Amino acid sequence: MSRKLGGNILVTGTNRGLGLELVRQLIQVTSNKDHIYACCREPEGSGAEALRELANENPKRITVIKLGINKLHGSAPLSATGGCGMMEVYQVNVVGPFLLAKHLLPHLKRAAEQMSLKHGGQGGHMSCRRSAIINISSLLGSIEKCPENFHIAPMYAYRTSKAALNMMTRCQAEDFREHHILATAIHPGWVQTDMGGKEAPLTSQDSVQGMLSVMSSLSDKDSGNHLDWQGNSIPW
Amino acid sequence: MSRKLGGNILVTGTNRGLGLELVRQLIQVTSNKDHIYACCREPEGSGAEALRELANENPKRITVIKLGINKLHGSAPLSATGGCGMMEVYQVNVVGPFLLAKHLLPHLKRAAEQMSLKHGGQGGHMSCRRSAIINISSLLGSIEKCPENFHIAPMYAYRTSKAALNMMTRCQAEDFREHHILATAIHPGWVQTDMGGKEAPLTSQDSVQGMLSVMSSLSDKDSGNHLDWQGNSIPW
Repeated sequence: MSRKLGGNILVTGTNRGLGLELVRQLIQVTSNKDHIYACCREPEGSGAEALRELANENPKRITVIKLGINKLHGSAPLSATGGCGMMEVYQVNVVGPFLLAKHLLPHLKRAAEQMSLKHGGQGGHMSCRRSAIINISSLLGSIEKCPENFHIAPMYAYRTSKAALNMMTRCQAEDFREHHILATAIHPGWVQTDMGGKEAPLTSQDSVQGMLSVMSSLSDKDSGNHLDWQGNSIPW
Repeated sequence: MSRKLGGNILVTGTNRGLGLELVRQLIQVTSNKDHIYACCREPEGSGAEALRELANENPKRITVIKLGINKLHGSAPLSATGGCGMMEVYQVNVVGPFLLAKHLLPHLKRAAEQMSLKHGGQGGHMSCRRSAIINISSLLGSIEKCPENFHIAPMYAYRTSKAALNMMTRCQAEDFREHHILATAIHPGWVQTDMGGKEAPLTSQDSVQGMLSVMSSLSDKDSGNHLDWQGNSIPW
């Protein structure tokens, strides 16, 4: 896996949960030449202590960046969801990733071009090693699956935002294919985090290990798709 | 068709385009006992002259209501789309319909119950005649179809909003099924309106005639689905 993930990797929401675990494992599976940009809302705050510790232990490999897009999760049913709640969740789950990818596009393009030059100027194939956007989506964003799980999690704001994120991922895949930038949505599973709760069946460690394994094997055929942490395709 | 559509019907965006044509045709196909609530942003403005005329000709059948949710369409590519654009389009295309259905829920429930009482207290089946939410969606909201038509219409804000609207429709269908309220998303086709442009293949008249025909035949199996103006199912 280590040879397939590397370069400059930017991760959002890294002060806790899956984001923090992603940074931990990325440090293990990448090389000294690779660098992790770990973003979170309040890197100086009390909620980012574990991240600061990790960064202090790996000063040459991790740069912590203050970036304010992770805020809310929208886990409220109809009666508790208003217009502001819908808007805030959309802003965090869709507009944040949208703007981030838009602003980083020149870097993503350059990374894809450099890999092309290394291989004699050929277009070559897409991969996470080359240049990729990974959007963290959710099974709850599957419109197809909604009737199966709506009553377990009747969260309008969260579900609509993740369906929109899936569409955004697919738009990015089409838009950036000519630049050889891969775009894939990944569902991390139901994980024991602050958001997932203690009754969740999956640990952060296992979820992230699975996602990194999936990411390391992504290729052209996966761009624009929605996969779970085990690589299974999730219907729209 | 006339026997299958009726009661109290609320239509948004009725000052022009498909909304206006819907009011026109609904007056024709419903009876004198039925009533149309025609909503638009500026019923007193110069852009609502045709609606005012129609309402004046049918004073007992049309009530015009000022309702501010129709504003933008989001037809811009990545380079011209910012965070505000994404948010505004989502507000108009998703949050507006979400709040409207939420606020009208007591009326929708009562309508469904009254129909049940008429039929001897049995639960009975769902239909537009009984109680229904019709969300106007789009083929461009189909995540599945995105690779086929992205480059013809690379509109991130519009597409993500319509994918989210489809998810919302499916949530409403599950949430309100116990109350016998139907919820279906309908794609009107590519229509010769201000939004669709002159090169569109379909007239407002034909689109609305098709949609009303589809609405008049909707039943339990259609709740939570996305159909086009001819009744064909559109993949998520």
